[in-house]
Amino acid sequence: MVSKHEILSLMERYDKDALAITTVCSHSSLQIFDGARKEGFRTIGICIGTPPKFYDAFPKAKPDEFLIVKDYKEILSKTRELATKNAIIIPHGSFVEYLGVGNFQKLKLPTYGNRNVLEWESDRDMSRKWLEAAGIKMPRQIKNPEDIRSPMMVKYYGAKGGMGFFVVKNYSDFQKRINRTEKYTIQEFVLGTRYYMHYFYSPIKHDGYSLSKGSLELLGIDRRVESNADEIFRIGSPTELSEAGIYPTFVVTGNLPLMVRESLLPRIFEMGEMVVEKSLELFGGMIGPFCLETVVTDSLELKVFEISARIVAGTNLFISGSPYSDLVDEKLSMGRRIAREIKMANETGMLSDIIS
Amino acid sequence: MVSKHEILSLMERYDKDALAITTVCSHSSLQIFDGARKEGFRTIGICIGTPPKFYDAFPKAKPDEFLIVKDYKEILSKTRELATKNAIIIPHGSFVEYLGVGNFQKLKLPTYGNRNVLEWESDRDMSRKWLEAAGIKMPRQIKNPEDIRSPMMVKYYGAKGGMGFFVVKNYSDFQKRINRTEKYTIQEFVLGTRYYMHYFYSPIKHDGYSLSKGSLELLGIDRRVESNADEIFRIGSPTELSEAGIYPTFVVTGNLPLMVRESLLPRIFEMGEMVVEKSLELFGGMIGPFCLETVVTDSLELKVFEISARIVAGTNLFISGSPYSDLVDEKLSMGRRIAREIKMANETGMLSDIIS
Amino acid sequence: MVSKHEILSLMERYDKDALAITTVCSHSSLQIFDGARKEGFRTIGICIGTPPKFYDAFPKAKPDEFLIVKDYKEILSKTRELATKNAIIIPHGSFVEYLGVGNFQKLKLPTYGNRNVLEWESDRDMSRKWLEAAGIKMPRQIKNPEDIRSPMMVKYYGAKGGMGFFVVKNYSDFQKRINRTEKYTIQEFVLGTRYYMHYFYSPIKHDGYSLSKGSLELLGIDRRVESNADEIFRIGSPTELSEAGIYPTFVVTGNLPLMVRESLLPRIFEMGEMVVEKSLELFGGMIGPFCLETVVTDSLELKVFEISARIVAGTNLFISGSPYSDLVDEKLSMGRRIAREIKMANETGMLSDIIS
Repeated sequence: MVSKHEILSLMERYDKDALAITTVCSHSSLQIFDGARKEGFRTIGICIGTPPKFYDAFPKAKPDEFLIVKDYKEILSKTRELATKNAIIIPHGSFVEYLGVGNFQKLKLPTYGNRNVLEWESDRDMSRKWLEAAGIKMPRQIKNPEDIRSPMMVKYYGAKGGMGFFVVKNYSDFQKRINRTEKYTIQEFVLGTRYYMHYFYSPIKHDGYSLSKGSLELLGIDRRVESNADEIFRIGSPTELSEAGIYPTFVVTGNLPLMVRESLLPRIFEMGEMVVEKSLELFGGMIGPFCLETVVTDSLELKVFEISARIVAGTNLFISGSPYSDLVDEKLSMGRRIAREIKMANETGMLSDIIS
Repeated sequence: MVSKHEILSLMERYDKDALAITTVCSHSSLQIFDGARKEGFRTIGICIGTPPKFYDAFPKAKPDEFLIVKDYKEILSKTRELATKNAIIIPHGSFVEYLGVGNFQKLKLPTYGNRNVLEWESDRDMSRKWLEAAGIKMPRQIKNPEDIRSPMMVKYYGAKGGMGFFVVKNYSDFQKRINRTEKYTIQEFVLGTRYYMHYFYSPIKHDGYSLSKGSLELLGIDRRVESNADEIFRIGSPTELSEAGIYPTFVVTGNLPLMVRESLLPRIFEMGEMVVEKSLELFGGMIGPFCLETVVTDSLELKVFEISARIVAGTNLFISGSPYSDLVDEKLSMGRRIAREIKMANETGMLSDIIS
Repeated sequence: MVSKHEILSLMERYDKDALAITTVCSHSSLQIFDGARKEGFRTIGICIGTPPKFYDAFPKAKPDEFLIVKDYKEILSKTRELATKNAIIIPHGSFVEYLGVGNFQKLKLPTYGNRNVLEWESDRDMSRKWLEAAGIKMPRQIKNPEDIRSPMMVKYYGAKGGMGFFVVKNYSDFQKRINRTEKYTIQEFVLGTRYYMHYFYSPIKHDGYSLSKGSLELLGIDRRVESNADEIFRIGSPTELSEAGIYPTFVVTGNLPLMVRESLLPRIFEMGEMVVEKSLELFGGMIGPFCLETVVTDSLELKVFEISARIVAGTNLFISGSPYSDLVDEKLSMGRRIAREIKMANETGMLSDIIS
């Protein structure tokens, strides 16, 4: 992994009045560019082959400049060019996935957030260790598939965006569906309703909901729309369909906006707080946006089935603000919040606290 | 119940230039405080033990002051203190539930709305009488559980927030699930899609959609998200699951925003109108926000399965305005609409028309 | 059909400084009037019997004037009166449906959009021809009901708003449910999640996402709420219910807001582009708002099951802007976009390009 020392010396040569917010043209790039522009930054969009034409339809979110690469790995050899343009990298799910965790950690460019979070987040065992150590309740996990006696969610290790998830009810279901050449986890299917909480942790802002260092915000909540699980009931129940070899799948195709019962907010903030505090202890802190992916049960318990340690696509819903962020500031998208953080850090000489 | 006369004499000693919008820190308090602040009011949040830290994360919705109590009943002994602070109470679902209907009616503080509505609303038989007398179509109710021949929703009397609701299809289902020590109603399960309409009735505003006295607004629509009923289909059908002793439950965990077919608006306004007019006749009027909880069937009929006679949590979605309220005024949340009503009543000497 | 020549000579007598945006009081009229008002137009609402009272509740969306008719057919005999008021007709789904396609095409009033689209859109065979010729993937269609071996959606020809749609799994299902006196199509039921894309095509605007002539915008996405299909799972699976003679129905009762995965946007714009380009070739172009009604499968393929060639009611959600339109301009509803187009065309002498 590139050392923080290297990044900081690289940044010494940056023109701090001309920082360019830079990300890959996908996932949540529209709001990242829109937010950066609103905070006064130049923007660079990294794309493959040719600039995506669709940005022409969104003048407020079109990057000032495109950096064209043949494939995402080529970004690694363009770091010098990007550094001369004072690029600050904003990671998002597709960025990390396309480049690969290992490559992303080697990227010699100032990157918003703490890259140490990646090894904790990308491995299901380590993320469980982190969250449970923080006091978060997670769905029960079982090791031996023969112990499956109730609905369980099976997830392959590398599975992204819900691809490669499936539900089984017993060992024989499991045997029918598993691909034994891949690593998997087996997790209790928690009954309830899903809420994806969009937190923002700032280590440099001290007013607001304060933590041992910095403060915590909640800027929105969404529910992922999963294909085909969200609509498959229209043609049959899981059992009926499985007889025809049709199974629910959990590929994320989009997002819809939600509010949660206000009486759950104290617990929701506590959860965010515990996860950040533990991250400070374990690896120097998870910085910026993160998402706890939860199920709220009918006894109003919150169980976290996954964590995303960067901007999630569900925040795309709130490009002009959410019912939560509206209580913080007007028109505050997550993309804009990130840009504002970098601006504030730059103005106060604290970039080294939020960059790695 | 505290008499209106008492409340009005109490209010005579109020400093009308320093009214403080006051509510319990839960349910819809964020928008109530945010709306009050936007209309220029001081705000007081009543909470148990210590001020909830989560308000620090929402600077626009943090009350100016917290009143700390050991338990909600203690509010009854703090009325003098609150009166010296010129407190106007805004009731919401949790406020009334935590304090209890009886205690709430005894509360010696000016309270927004007509407290007489409580006895009509909190009793399922009386609310049905009211709504049916108003000409509202409700799901058929049956007395004898042996008559259950199609899907029916069973609700215990005190059941709040969807806890203690369940669906049965026949008498044997019913026998398996009922707790005979509790009072219940049995209501037809109406097939369709749910819409929760957020109305606002002002007895003192005379332009707009006018009634025999005052006028009616529609400020938003939501759908409640119910755990686990909204996602249980992912693992099995009701029949399949019941064999494993798993049943759908209807606990409200949050809300999502909706629009309704525009061609239904005439009927939706008529329904609101009829319910308000009947309330004026029966008990002097239901004042301020109320919600008709409806199912729209596939023949585009609207059936009302419940009424809430105060601000509902679904309005939390629209802190910066809904597609409906945007056609009334900019950034008009229900919380802000309430504050604006109190402001207008105060300025025109009509507080006694909206307070009890 | 009324000729474009007739319409253009009629418009020569119009007072271009006093154009009146005119539509039928239903469907999406609130945002059409609100948008027109915001762009500085007078507005006329056509209604039956008496002016609908509900507009009084929405001061920003109340038309300046009502034109009262006994029934919709009477509009045909009021064209002279409307022409003296410089009326420009904005068609929407209910307008066309109430008047009938044939009558609508005969209407002697300047109408926003290209009326030639109607014969292509209103016939399921012709719309399929158009879309497939454009390179759009649609659900497989079968002619012979005996070939039904998997879930299929049967739609009667005239079916509107989802009324008269049903799902069958085999020939015996089909026989049980079909009304053989009506014309129908049988279409594969594509498993996935539905997204209704709100496009806007301007033949006179040349910046932005440019086409061979003019440019394309994406202003929002919704999902239709269908009664009872969206909630029927709460009481049973399709098979369980069919035994009791209860079937899912697909009547649109409202809409909820959605975002789609950002990585699908290039494909979504391509699809819009291909459909517009083919329409230019086939019948002089589909002008203004249109909607591709799609299913996103779990392999992230988009299949279009229908097209609407005018403003759809799902745009009602975004009266003050959507997360997509916010990246184009502030508070840009589809209704306002239409008004702005007419304004721009009027100012630049290009009304003849967008009127028929």
